[in-house]
Amino acid sequence: MAQLRAFESARENGREVPEIVCFEKQEDWGGQWNFSWRTGIDGNGEPVHSSMYRNLWSNGPKEALEFAEYTFDEHFGRAISSYPPRAVLWDYISGRVEHSDVKKYVRFNTSVRWVQYDEETQKFTVTVEDLINRTTESSEFDHVIVGSGHFSFPNVPEFAGIETYPGSLRHAHDFRGAESFADKDVLLIGASYSAEDIGVQSYKMGARSVTLSYRTQAMGFDWPEGMREVPLVERFDGSTVHFSDGTSGEYDAVVLCTGYLHHYPFLPSDLALDSPNCIYPATLYRGVVAESNDKLFYLGAQDQWFTFNMFDAQAWYVRDVILGDITVPNQEAQEAHMATWLARADAITTATEEIQFQADYIRDLIEMTDYPMFDLDEVVRIFLEWKADKRSNILGYRDEVYTSVMTGTMAVVHHTPWLAELDDSIERYLSEPENDVQAVLNDGESVLESKP
Amino acid sequence: MAQLRAFESARENGREVPEIVCFEKQEDWGGQWNFSWRTGIDGNGEPVHSSMYRNLWSNGPKEALEFAEYTFDEHFGRAISSYPPRAVLWDYISGRVEHSDVKKYVRFNTSVRWVQYDEETQKFTVTVEDLINRTTESSEFDHVIVGSGHFSFPNVPEFAGIETYPGSLRHAHDFRGAESFADKDVLLIGASYSAEDIGVQSYKMGARSVTLSYRTQAMGFDWPEGMREVPLVERFDGSTVHFSDGTSGEYDAVVLCTGYLHHYPFLPSDLALDSPNCIYPATLYRGVVAESNDKLFYLGAQDQWFTFNMFDAQAWYVRDVILGDITVPNQEAQEAHMATWLARADAITTATEEIQFQADYIRDLIEMTDYPMFDLDEVVRIFLEWKADKRSNILGYRDEVYTSVMTGTMAVVHHTPWLAELDDSIERYLSEPENDVQAVLNDGESVLESKP
Repeated sequence: MAQLRAFESARENGREVPEIVCFEKQEDWGGQWNFSWRTGIDGNGEPVHSSMYRNLWSNGPKEALEFAEYTFDEHFGRAISSYPPRAVLWDYISGRVEHSDVKKYVRFNTSVRWVQYDEETQKFTVTVEDLINRTTESSEFDHVIVGSGHFSFPNVPEFAGIETYPGSLRHAHDFRGAESFADKDVLLIGASYSAEDIGVQSYKMGARSVTLSYRTQAMGFDWPEGMREVPLVERFDGSTVHFSDGTSGEYDAVVLCTGYLHHYPFLPSDLALDSPNCIYPATLYRGVVAESNDKLFYLGAQDQWFTFNMFDAQAWYVRDVILGDITVPNQEAQEAHMATWLARADAITTATEEIQFQADYIRDLIEMTDYPMFDLDEVVRIFLEWKADKRSNILGYRDEVYTSVMTGTMAVVHHTPWLAELDDSIERYLSEPENDVQAVLNDGESVLESKP
Repeated sequence: MAQLRAFESARENGREVPEIVCFEKQEDWGGQWNFSWRTGIDGNGEPVHSSMYRNLWSNGPKEALEFAEYTFDEHFGRAISSYPPRAVLWDYISGRVEHSDVKKYVRFNTSVRWVQYDEETQKFTVTVEDLINRTTESSEFDHVIVGSGHFSFPNVPEFAGIETYPGSLRHAHDFRGAESFADKDVLLIGASYSAEDIGVQSYKMGARSVTLSYRTQAMGFDWPEGMREVPLVERFDGSTVHFSDGTSGEYDAVVLCTGYLHHYPFLPSDLALDSPNCIYPATLYRGVVAESNDKLFYLGAQDQWFTFNMFDAQAWYVRDVILGDITVPNQEAQEAHMATWLARADAITTATEEIQFQADYIRDLIEMTDYPMFDLDEVVRIFLEWKADKRSNILGYRDEVYTSVMTGTMAVVHHTPWLAELDDSIERYLSEPENDVQAVLNDGESVLESKP
């Protein structure tokens, strides 16, 4: 969507842009934000793309991901809170492209089956399947941009004895909500965002206990009563799970929050990005150009602090490379450039340094295009505030508000604290419930406290 | 595995056989019978193949699927019961090929990415990915045999409001056991083998209630207390499910037993079989040769009463076509031949006719090769007995025994009735528990009844 918008922006400025075809296997756009109740394999026999669950709310402040050229104010016409639920963010990102006329470039329900590069013609042959009519066709392209992301193919390690586990078991990719965890003992394996967020979601939905198992380091939040961290799972024995510290427990449900794979089954291995989830994949010049083929690009292939606005910065850069406004240097110069960034990335020891690194990376890209520059240092500061807010209250950080660096608008406190809000719909979010507002006005307590 | 064994059999008989490569994305063979605890996407980022669950037992008598050239007696060295659990059948089918030296032809952990046919060279280019080393390679082949089956890609229809359903929800393909359904209200959508078997499994594991929802016709078994059939789901509203007869219910878990798709993401549409699940796919000559390309074959692509021995009959036929012993006639003759079979298939109105049809189809194939002919009419009779046994006791039919048409061996009654047997391991199955045998000998009652 960022890439389509980038080209559209150039077109609006009078530039001639090349023919664009966007192949999307889902029936609508939004990628990760296009929620599906389905798990595993979708209605067309394809792997389900989105890893989101029904009740997901943004786990970072919207002020850190806001598009520089399409603000939340412009979309919603008024201030909203800093941590919107899933449907509200989908509305924002799809709203931007609905405004322009780019949907016509997208071939929905079309899965890319195979991409081949011909050294002689210097063109890609892209073979796709129309999933509705079940027809295969091939076309030639000068450039290929991989925008399928890398949080869709689950990384699912083996654990001794896991085949004997009789309870509910799935990877976070297939988690769709914690309602059925009420009064249950839940084990989450992992110590990153999936474990943290599915953990607090399970707590919110009334899990009896939430146990989080880490491999190298505990998250160390100030967990509420009923949530705790334990070291790595050693083995399963039926519903009993043994941990590396010699303790064990019985669990009704297990969610593997073990991350995702870079996996591009439509690409031959010489074109497919093979990388761990890291801040600067070693084979992508400026984080987007494939080292093996400078006509092939990846968007959002790094681990992400920044998201939507970073994808924009990348898409604008890729656009200008394709339009010929930016020249990708020769292999040697590419490597020299990357060596500097890789050395800095290698030296990173703290999250703060990593956030600062990504801000500098984005600045480097924006300086080369006409994408609106924004106060990246201030966004870094917002990220650090967010991290501090999580440290002080992992259940309440989503009730905090921040100021937009794009518009200066201060976010409004949502009418209902996140922990008490069980209706995640956009209608509820944008409503102003009389009673709740009244309750706050009347006694000055939070809605959560004022409710029975 | 049948195809490898077919060629090996020819080799043992002194025939020269072509070079064979078998690409298998899993790390072991057995296909559907190679159980995995995984669901959705496997450890290599590929769709999980097997649809089996931990506690699955054969749902048809082994006497109906026995290989004509490798009997149960030969494998186990003694009589066993007629409905073995999963691990026992896997042992049988892998045992046959372990005996010969064919594993060397299999490239495990290798996924076929794309197959292309060149009209000029009349060869297939098969592009595969080594999932361990993440390398892509292509090779040329004269023939391609698709042996990936058609019960691995779930058919997952949409139901109104299903995205609001908060309970445990999955397709039968991702069902791995009913232990967690104990004391739960379970809804199974579908009225074929998956629904029937997951239904009785849920009952066995102590579900509070099991509701089976059919689209066109109820299965009509003599269900025990707690199991019942209702018409099709009209819509979901949270955990409440509304049926087309105006009734509704609340369910803790839903399993979509809605069948599977013919799905071959590695084949272009002109080569990929596009068929409903039926007894005689309209585009496969003799049920195996692709109408569009007589160098391309499918094994087991029809709906199946017969299984292992039918796959053998097909594999022996395909082998002899490839060896040049059998000539595939021209398109016109193919169509004339198929017209007769298709007309007969179209006229089928009962299951009995369909079973007889498949027996005749297999006879037709075996008559053309050196695969040992067996008493197909007697197997039809066993199928009919099996169906009658299910009618009279859907919870107890697996305790019945039949006589092998291959060896004349009468199966033995298993030491523990299926409903009481909670240990599905091959070790337990092949053991002779002293106490249980004693219990039967002493009081003449079934083990189930004699246990407290």
